[in-house]
Amino acid sequence: MPKPKLLETFPNPYPKRDYEIVMTCPEFTALCPVGGIESDAKELEALEGGAPDFGTITVTYVPNVHCVELKSLKLYLWSFRNDGIFYERAVNTILDDLAKIVKPRSMTVVGDFNIRGGIKSVITARAGKAKR
Amino acid sequence: MPKPKLLETFPNPYPKRDYEIVMTCPEFTALCPVGGIESDAKELEALEGGAPDFGTITVTYVPNVHCVELKSLKLYLWSFRNDGIFYERAVNTILDDLAKIVKPRSMTVVGDFNIRGGIKSVITARAGKAKR
Amino acid sequence: MPKPKLLETFPNPYPKRDYEIVMTCPEFTALCPVGGIESDAKELEALEGGAPDFGTITVTYVPNVHCVELKSLKLYLWSFRNDGIFYERAVNTILDDLAKIVKPRSMTVVGDFNIRGGIKSVITARAGKAKR
Amino acid sequence: MPKPKLLETFPNPYPKRDYEIVMTCPEFTALCPVGGIESDAKELEALEGGAPDFGTITVTYVPNVHCVELKSLKLYLWSFRNDGIFYERAVNTILDDLAKIVKPRSMTVVGDFNIRGGIKSVITARAGKAKR
Amino acid sequence: MPKPKLLETFPNPYPKRDYEIVMTCPEFTALCPVGGIESDAKELEALEGGAPDFGTITVTYVPNVHCVELKSLKLYLWSFRNDGIFYERAVNTILDDLAKIVKPRSMTVVGDFNIRGGIKSVITARAGKAKR
Amino acid sequence: MPKPKLLETFPNPYPKRDYEIVMTCPEFTALCPVGGIESDAKELEALEGGAPDFGTITVTYVPNVHCVELKSLKLYLWSFRNDGIFYERAVNTILDDLAKIVKPRSMTVVGDFNIRGGIKSVITARAGKAKR
Amino acid sequence: MPKPKLLETFPNPYPKRDYEIVMTCPEFTALCPVGGIESDAKELEALEGGAPDFGTITVTYVPNVHCVELKSLKLYLWSFRNDGIFYERAVNTILDDLAKIVKPRSMTVVGDFNIRGGIKSVITARAGKAKR
Amino acid sequence: MPKPKLLETFPNPYPKRDYEIVMTCPEFTALCPVGGIESDAKELEALEGGAPDFGTITVTYVPNVHCVELKSLKLYLWSFRNDGIFYERAVNTILDDLAKIVKPRSMTVVGDFNIRGGIKSVITARAGKAKR
Amino acid sequence: MPKPKLLETFPNPYPKRDYEIVMTCPEFTALCPVGGIESDAKELEALEGGAPDFGTITVTYVPNVHCVELKSLKLYLWSFRNDGIFYERAVNTILDDLAKIVKPRSMTVVGDFNIRGGIKSVITARAGKAKR
Amino acid sequence: MPKPKLLETFPNPYPKRDYEIVMTCPEFTALCPVGGIESDAKELEALEGGAPDFGTITVTYVPNVHCVELKSLKLYLWSFRNDGIFYERAVNTILDDLAKIVKPRSMTVVGDFNIRGGIKSVITARAGKAKR
Repeated sequence: MPKPKLLETFPNPYPKRDYEIVMTCPEFTALCPVGGIESDAKELEALEGGAPDFGTITVTYVPNVHCVELKSLKLYLWSFRNDGIFYERAVNTILDDLAKIVKPRSMTVVGDFNIRGGIKSVITARAGKAKR
Repeated sequence: MPKPKLLETFPNPYPKRDYEIVMTCPEFTALCPVGGIESDAKELEALEGGAPDFGTITVTYVPNVHCVELKSLKLYLWSFRNDGIFYERAVNTILDDLAKIVKPRSMTVVGDFNIRGGIKSVITARAGKAKR
Repeated sequence: MPKPKLLETFPNPYPKRDYEIVMTCPEFTALCPVGGIESDAKELEALEGGAPDFGTITVTYVPNVHCVELKSLKLYLWSFRNDGIFYERAVNTILDDLAKIVKPRSMTVVGDFNIRGGIKSVITARAGKAKR
Repeated sequence: MPKPKLLETFPNPYPKRDYEIVMTCPEFTALCPVGGIESDAKELEALEGGAPDFGTITVTYVPNVHCVELKSLKLYLWSFRNDGIFYERAVNTILDDLAKIVKPRSMTVVGDFNIRGGIKSVITARAGKAKR
Repeated sequence: MPKPKLLETFPNPYPKRDYEIVMTCPEFTALCPVGGIESDAKELEALEGGAPDFGTITVTYVPNVHCVELKSLKLYLWSFRNDGIFYERAVNTILDDLAKIVKPRSMTVVGDFNIRGGIKSVITARAGKAKR
Repeated sequence: MPKPKLLETFPNPYPKRDYEIVMTCPEFTALCPVGGIESDAKELEALEGGAPDFGTITVTYVPNVHCVELKSLKLYLWSFRNDGIFYERAVNTILDDLAKIVKPRSMTVVGDFNIRGGIKSVITARAGKAKR
Repeated sequence: MPKPKLLETFPNPYPKRDYEIVMTCPEFTALCPVGGIESDAKELEALEGGAPDFGTITVTYVPNVHCVELKSLKLYLWSFRNDGIFYERAVNTILDDLAKIVKPRSMTVVGDFNIRGGIKSVITARAGKAKR
Repeated sequence: MPKPKLLETFPNPYPKRDYEIVMTCPEFTALCPVGGIESDAKELEALEGGAPDFGTITVTYVPNVHCVELKSLKLYLWSFRNDGIFYERAVNTILDDLAKIVKPRSMTVVGDFNIRGGIKSVITARAGKAKR
Repeated sequence: MPKPKLLETFPNPYPKRDYEIVMTCPEFTALCPVGGIESDAKELEALEGGAPDFGTITVTYVPNVHCVELKSLKLYLWSFRNDGIFYERAVNTILDDLAKIVKPRSMTVVGDFNIRGGIKSVITARAGKAKR
Repeated sequence: MPKPKLLETFPNPYPKRDYEIVMTCPEFTALCPVGGIESDAKELEALEGGAPDFGTITVTYVPNVHCVELKSLKLYLWSFRNDGIFYERAVNTILDDLAKIVKPRSMTVVGDFNIRGGIKSVITARAGKAKR
């Protein structure tokens, strides 16, 4: 299960200025929920869970009072590793968890997932007004 | 013949938020209708139909109540494989079939087709207001 | 001489929708008019005409009642092969010839020509309002 | 079924010289035999056959008395389109069919297939001594 | 723990010919053993195991009597997912497990692992004589 | 410690025209403050300071009365080499130091930092109105 | 010294249409004025002038009555070869010289200069209203 | 018709040393002989000849007494422009014409032709012993 | 000063097999010795040492009894950070220090350094017989 | 005129080991001798010399007693700037001048020159036995 408690913040050192922070994690992995696009009975037995998904998560935000602590973001994203979750839900959950703790002026989360069944998926969700 | 009945949806898990989903299928193939740019009598005899076309279909949409089920999209796109269809009609048909079932806030379909007769074609059709 | 009579159209299958068609021809060639940037007397004697130019022609348009037939576009572009013509005139002539026959809602023609004398040229001409 | 009868040759215009011909076809497609890595019952029902595979076939050879006629190679490769065949068999079959008709001094066939189940496959088979 | 029992083979359809098969899996992941280059106490507590490693595994072999069944290779590589293993051991283990079951004429396994601590690692192990 | 005194200017040769200058330094390095994402006790002992960070700094500005002297910018950026500083603070400090001396019509500083802990960071800060 | 007298024009063949011409010269070279970022006494003695700079000049304009003759632009840019000139002045001088002779509806000149002292510079100057 | 008389040579300035010269011409064009892979009756009527082919010719040689004069090579390659010739014959003809006049220690000619009918062709012919 | 004492090893888990390990560190930096290609009096005063150099160090080896511990290699390479050393000496020193501790069957060290004074340098040194 | 007197050496710090040094200078420029491929009377008048050529010079050598001093190589290559010289002579002259002063175990010089008249040239000359 994703563990938002792992997320930590530190005080924004320049709170008076609108500036943008982009953090890209190319090593996101989770499990496809049971019944996913490429899993069958034998595969589930092999892994005791759904088939693995891989992708890149990019978080872009304009901080207000808090900044995301980089190492805690890494640990939070690791906590999806053995979780069965759909793409749409994963991206929106990450946005909700981060926005709740960081309270940014604006935030965008993009999940760019590897090809499954010959189709590539990219999901983009935003909270607040995107800068530019 | 394209089979829109193959398309399935699942409930949008975050219906209150405008967010964007991009699905890219680089393995689209159909047949060129008889009389197409590179076919002649002998070729048609060889294949018992028109010459094959290849391309990449990209669907971008902002979901409302429903999301496209990924595997069903794959099967739907496979159903063009032995169908003779012009580029312009293929792209607009995919947009119509998807929009009818998904009822998105907005949707764009792009067909990026391989070179034929030394000319590359890209067709872009939109329904609703494109996000951004 | 360019032969606009080679251009043919077919009825736009989705005339009620504004959608965009991009056709790219990377194999355009014409001759540089006499006195061009790299030709001299001996070269002209060798070829009995100007020095060859090479480039890529890209046509982008929103169709109204007619679409450009792909094979006829290929033949029309081939008809410049042994014609001496300046870059600026070639691009504007292609735009005029196509717009006259297709009567599009908007159309853009780009000519991206190879380096001559260490300088690369790109010419862009538009008719009607460009989509986006 | 692959149709080797579609293959035609023309006389090698320079039979006294060892020279190399490489022909690359990036638009090869066939069907995965029933029970393939990503197919299930519903998919087969949808397509009345196996799931489609895509790849690039490259033929490299040193001609002896005959050369492969390019258009006939295209038609021959098209004839795999609705055939269920494993990668290993497809590549070796193409090599056997071509070598039988062309009788080259040497020939190599490479099949570079798109990712299936997260794994990409490349198969290389040779007949005679590869040049260099 | 890696599960070599998941590996399956099928009969080589062309056993008389030396030909080469390359299978590339860009979605390999395992855990770094406790005490690895970037893990500390807090991280281990977060994940109940070591920090995740990511990489691409490439298997190249010349088959003898058996070929590796593609789907079973995928399941076998998935079985490293929650295993703590050093790079050097992972690559040599995969080579040993595959060579034992497939008995190839030759086989090479390459593990190309993502940057850790600012350093990228690639491990290459071979069994038998590499073709070419 | 960063040394803004190293920065020098020269008179803008075209003060009446709004024009844009972009200076990119791909060789920026600083130290991560103690307690950073990948440092531990042994590492600090080895280097007698924090772990090194690497990145590219890009400064874009529209000059008013003064231009940044290129060599002095190089020396100023070198002065971060043995300084422990967080990404957010480094980018905003560079912007403040430069804007104070150059008094530009507008200025943007982007810090594009190498992957640390599997996450890449890009920080963008602006002063004045960005041109375009 | 730059020689604007080398610049020649020809009549715009389509003066009623706003269209865009881009000319890119990747072989621009000039000398750094004495005291430049990498020159010292010995270097100057060696070359009897400043150290050489290299870059790409791109001119984009919408013609009015005249077009720039391509060969004359080449000769004009060559005339900077043994001239000591700062980046900012070179780009603005080229813009002034061209705009004075061509009298375009709008014109932009970009100078993209190679790395000096580990820093890359790009200067962009505009006259009139940029198209799009 | 190709005109080998256009080829000129100049004395090799370093005849005692084996050194290699590579000349690449990315703007080769010829006509496909009547009956080629993509031509039909209407196309031939349009152009009064075969369909155009495009490709890159690369000549690599170790000079003996003579070197190829660059401008004369350009004119010689232009002389194929309106000639109907098969790929195999074009490459071997260029090799024969050049080797006869230059008498090199060794020479290789590669013709890398654009996709026709979905298939790309590369032809390589050598005379003498290739260096390395 | 480089600190070879930081280097640590662990036992090779597969000592009976010749296999290859490649470790690439793209974040190597050292100082140019006083009097280096781009430093002058003012720069040295600014940094209290020579100008910084940047490059990528790649170590390739076939282990015998010991393997290099990855984290210790990182710390060892960091120890060059404030050391003035020429390229040729740096690469040969790294090879000597590593070979002395690891006693590999063979080892190659490549230093690929960024452009200085418009010239890029790559130094390659080997100990023992390189594998392949 | 090229000035070999500008070349300086320093003692090879590891004379007992065969190791390789590659130095690449992407900013080489010289003048084409009068009568060159693209010059005519007017151009020569404009520049008072031949048309400029541009290219990249790469020197690869295994040092014996001496190494090339990097800055002196830069100055030596600059000394071709206003010299009229053919490609073949430039590459062989650089090899002779360097080999005479450095007395390497082996040395290779490659000149990779920009397109002139639509043809790109690469010249490679070697002295001694090339390493590998």
